Amino acid sequence: MEISGADFIRGLALLGAGLAMGLGAIGPGVGEGFAAGKACEAIGRRPEEAGLLTRTMLVGQAVSESTGIYSLVVALLLMFVVK
Amino acid sequence: MEISGADFIRGLALLGAGLAMGLGAIGPGVGEGFAAGKACEAIGRRPEEAGLLTRTMLVGQAVSESTGIYSLVVALLLMFVVK
Amino acid sequence: MEISGADFIRGLALLGAGLAMGLGAIGPGVGEGFAAGKACEAIGRRPEEAGLLTRTMLVGQAVSESTGIYSLVVALLLMFVVK
Amino acid sequence: MEISGADFIRGLALLGAGLAMGLGAIGPGVGEGFAAGKACEAIGRRPEEAGLLTRTMLVGQAVSESTGIYSLVVALLLMFVVK
Amino acid sequence: MEISGADFIRGLALLGAGLAMGLGAIGPGVGEGFAAGKACEAIGRRPEEAGLLTRTMLVGQAVSESTGIYSLVVALLLMFVVK
Amino acid sequence: MEISGADFIRGLALLGAGLAMGLGAIGPGVGEGFAAGKACEAIGRRPEEAGLLTRTMLVGQAVSESTGIYSLVVALLLMFVVK
Amino acid sequence: MEISGADFIRGLALLGAGLAMGLGAIGPGVGEGFAAGKACEAIGRRPEEAGLLTRTMLVGQAVSESTGIYSLVVALLLMFVVK
Amino acid sequence: MEISGADFIRGLALLGAGLAMGLGAIGPGVGEGFAAGKACEAIGRRPEEAGLLTRTMLVGQAVSESTGIYSLVVALLLMFVVK
Amino acid sequence: MEISGADFIRGLALLGAGLAMGLGAIGPGVGEGFAAGKACEAIGRRPEEAGLLTRTMLVGQAVSESTGIYSLVVALLLMFVVK
Amino acid sequence: MEISGADFIRGLALLGAGLAMGLGAIGPGVGEGFAAGKACEAIGRRPEEAGLLTRTMLVGQAVSESTGIYSLVVALLLMFVVK
Amino acid sequence: MEISGADFIRGLALLGAGLAMGLGAIGPGVGEGFAAGKACEAIGRRPEEAGLLTRTMLVGQAVSESTGIYSLVVALLLMFVVK
Amino acid sequence: MEISGADFIRGLALLGAGLAMGLGAIGPGVGEGFAAGKACEAIGRRPEEAGLLTRTMLVGQAVSESTGIYSLVVALLLMFVVK
Amino acid sequence: MEISGADFIRGLALLGAGLAMGLGAIGPGVGEGFAAGKACEAIGRRPEEAGLLTRTMLVGQAVSESTGIYSLVVALLLMFVVK
Amino acid sequence: MEISGADFIRGLALLGAGLAMGLGAIGPGVGEGFAAGKACEAIGRRPEEAGLLTRTMLVGQAVSESTGIYSLVVALLLMFVVK
Repeated sequence: MEISGADFIRGLALLGAGLAMGLGAIGPGVGEGFAAGKACEAIGRRPEEAGLLTRTMLVGQAVSESTGIYSLVVALLLMFVVK
Repeated sequence: MEISGADFIRGLALLGAGLAMGLGAIGPGVGEGFAAGKACEAIGRRPEEAGLLTRTMLVGQAVSESTGIYSLVVALLLMFVVK
Repeated sequence: MEISGADFIRGLALLGAGLAMGLGAIGPGVGEGFAAGKACEAIGRRPEEAGLLTRTMLVGQAVSESTGIYSLVVALLLMFVVK
Repeated sequence: MEISGADFIRGLALLGAGLAMGLGAIGPGVGEGFAAGKACEAIGRRPEEAGLLTRTMLVGQAVSESTGIYSLVVALLLMFVVK
Repeated sequence: MEISGADFIRGLALLGAGLAMGLGAIGPGVGEGFAAGKACEAIGRRPEEAGLLTRTMLVGQAVSESTGIYSLVVALLLMFVVK
Repeated sequence: MEISGADFIRGLALLGAGLAMGLGAIGPGVGEGFAAGKACEAIGRRPEEAGLLTRTMLVGQAVSESTGIYSLVVALLLMFVVK
Repeated sequence: MEISGADFIRGLALLGAGLAMGLGAIGPGVGEGFAAGKACEAIGRRPEEAGLLTRTMLVGQAVSESTGIYSLVVALLLMFVVK
Repeated sequence: MEISGADFIRGLALLGAGLAMGLGAIGPGVGEGFAAGKACEAIGRRPEEAGLLTRTMLVGQAVSESTGIYSLVVALLLMFVVK
Repeated sequence: MEISGADFIRGLALLGAGLAMGLGAIGPGVGEGFAAGKACEAIGRRPEEAGLLTRTMLVGQAVSESTGIYSLVVALLLMFVVK
Repeated sequence: MEISGADFIRGLALLGAGLAMGLGAIGPGVGEGFAAGKACEAIGRRPEEAGLLTRTMLVGQAVSESTGIYSLVVALLLMFVVK
Repeated sequence: MEISGADFIRGLALLGAGLAMGLGAIGPGVGEGFAAGKACEAIGRRPEEAGLLTRTMLVGQAVSESTGIYSLVVALLLMFVVK
Repeated sequence: MEISGADFIRGLALLGAGLAMGLGAIGPGVGEGFAAGKACEAIGRRPEEAGLLTRTMLVGQAVSESTGIYSLVVALLLMFVVK
Repeated sequence: MEISGADFIRGLALLGAGLAMGLGAIGPGVGEGFAAGKACEAIGRRPEEAGLLTRTMLVGQAVSESTGIYSLVVALLLMFVVK
Repeated sequence: MEISGADFIRGLALLGAGLAMGLGAIGPGVGEGFAAGKACEAIGRRPEEAGLLTRTMLVGQAVSESTGIYSLVVALLLMFVVK
């Protein structure tokens, strides 16, 4: 195996990027879907507040999304910046 | 084994791409299905608000979908861009 | 072991393709089944809205299906395009 | 070990085929069973809508089945087409 | 170790066959049991619809069974056809 | 290690047989127990339909059992037929 | 390591026997316990049907037991018959 | 490492014995505890049927226990009989 | 590494003993705690039956304990008897 | 590596001791906490039976504790007695 | 393999960064989504308190977010500061 | 690698200490938190019994704590006493 | 591999830092999100107690946060202090 | 690899420290968050008992925190004291 040190680092970094994004998508995906489902339930009870509820859902999802975005950032950094 | 450093990097990158997409599809898949189920439940109670509820469901799912799309992007980058 | 670098890459790519599709089918499979079950429940309460509910279920499932399709795409790319 | 590169690729491809189908059968199996159970529950409440409910169940299951079929396709491709 | 390439492929294929069937039996087993339980519950409420409910249960289980059968097919292919 | 290729194949086949049966017994075991419990619950409410319910339970369990039997078949094939 | 091929096969077969029985006892153990608990619950509501309920419970458990017995059979075969 | 083939077999057999008993105790332990809890609940509602309920609980637990005993038997065989 | 065959066997036997007891304590621990909690709940409703309920709880726990004791026995055998 | 056979045994024994106690503390910890929570709930409903309920809780927990103590015993034996 | 010590450290650090962010995104993602869903439910009952509830949700999510941010910080430190 | 036998033992002992405490903290942590939550629920219903309920909670938690303490003891022994 | 002992230590320390923070963020993230969701639910019922409830939520979350902070501290120590 | 025995011990000790704190933070984090959520629920019903409930919550959390602190202690000992 003619693998230099830089190759070794890069290989593990890319594997780490895949794991970071793959694992990091589980939590927000489940959590945001729960929020969307509960919002539908609430609108089904009070359709006249749909705008308010959609806004609340989106704000709550945006915060939950943040950790997914962190994962994306870490994966991108591992792929393109880190050497 | 006549594996050069570039081959080592590429091999781990492709394995990482598979794991990123495979793991990253679990969360959104479960979450969006939950949202769809709850939307059906809500429409079953208030069919006259079906348009509103479908729109809410789709907006909520779209946010949840985002982490799945990040996973796809990371997998594509690992396959075609990263060297 | 007379394994060249290209063989090493291809081997890991094919293993990654299997994992991507296998893991990626768990989430949508569970989520869409949940949606289908809830739709049946709702139709059982309001059979006169069956068309509307079936349409909502299908739209919601279609979004959930998307991550399964991404997984398929990634698996196909890993098998036939990536070198 | 007198394993050539092509043997290495094929071995991992067949292991990947087994994992793709094995893991890919978990999600649809659970999800479709949930849908079937909920459909029975609904018919138990409204037997006069049995045809409608069975149709909805089958449509919903068919979508959920799709990821299982993708897994089958990927496994077959890994076994018979990919080299 | 005097293992030829063909032996290596066959060994991994048989291990893959075991994993495909073993993992692939989890989902349908749980899902169909859930459907059977719900059908009993429904018949307990409406015994006069037992025939209808048993038929629905069987149809729903048959679809859920399909992924288990795919697993069996893949395992058989890995054992007897693939070389 | 004086392990020939045929020994290597056989060893992995037997390990695969153990995993196929061990993992494959989890799903049907849990699912059939759920069906049995629900049948008892239903008979507890309507003892006059015990025969009907027991029959439904057994039919439903028989389908769920099928994946366990597939696992057994695959394990037996791996032990006695495959070479 | 002076391990012959037959020793290698036997070692993996015995490890496989342990895994087959150990994993295979999880599903029936949980499922039968669920059935027993539900039967107690049902008898607590209708003690006059205790005989009927105990019989149903035992029939249901017997089916669930079957996969545990398959596991035992496979483990015994791996220990005493397979060579 | 001066490990003969018989030592290799015995080592894996003993590790397999530990795994068989350890994993095999999870299912019955959880299931029987569930049955015991449900029996207490039922007796709390109908103390006059305590004898009947305790008997049902014990019968149900005895069946569930069986897979635990199979595990013990397999572990003992792996330790004392298999060579 | 100057490890003889007997050392190899003993090392794996002791690791197996630790796993057998560690894994084997999970099931009974959870199950008996569930039984104890349900017994408290039942006594809270019918304190005049406390003796009866405590006895039932202890009998049920004793059966559940059995698999834990099997694990202990296997661990002790692996440590002190098996060679 | 100048590791003698006795060192190899001792190393695995100590790792096994850690796993035995670590895994063995999960079940009793969860189960006893469940019992404690249910006892508080019951006392909250019937404070006049607090003594009786505390006693029942402690008896039930003591049985559940037993598997934790077995784990401790096995860990201590692996550390101080086994050679 | 011409991997120097510094390369070894850097490779494990980057893999650790990926795991830290990937695993660390699961908890906050699920938790914040739960909070968002419950907030929608509450607003659906009391839309006149939407501002108050949104503020509470955001404060609660901000605390939950903190561990996700710690994970990001650790990942960044592992990538850019640690040598 | 100039690792003596004593070093090998000590290394595995310290890794085992970490695993014993890490895994052993999961069960009591979850269980005691459940007990604390249930105690708050009970006091919320009967604040006049707060002293009694707090005492019960603490007694129940103390028993659950015990397995955590065992884990600590085993970890300390593995670190400071065992050689 | 020209890896010195200090490099080996540092590499494992950094991997350990990533695991400590990644795993350590799961518990507090889920727990605090649960607390936030329950606080929203409670404020939705009693908006006039919002200040009190927010304060209670924050105090409870702060304690839960503590283990996340411990994880951060351990990760930082592993990265910057330990040598 | 020029790794001395002391380096080997230290490397495993630091990895063990990371695992001890990472795993050990899961249980208390989830449990304390559950307690905080239940306390908010209880205060939402009885705000006039807020002081009492907050105190109970803190006492209960303090006990649950203890295992997290043990984990911290073990991690610190593994990092700074153990040699």
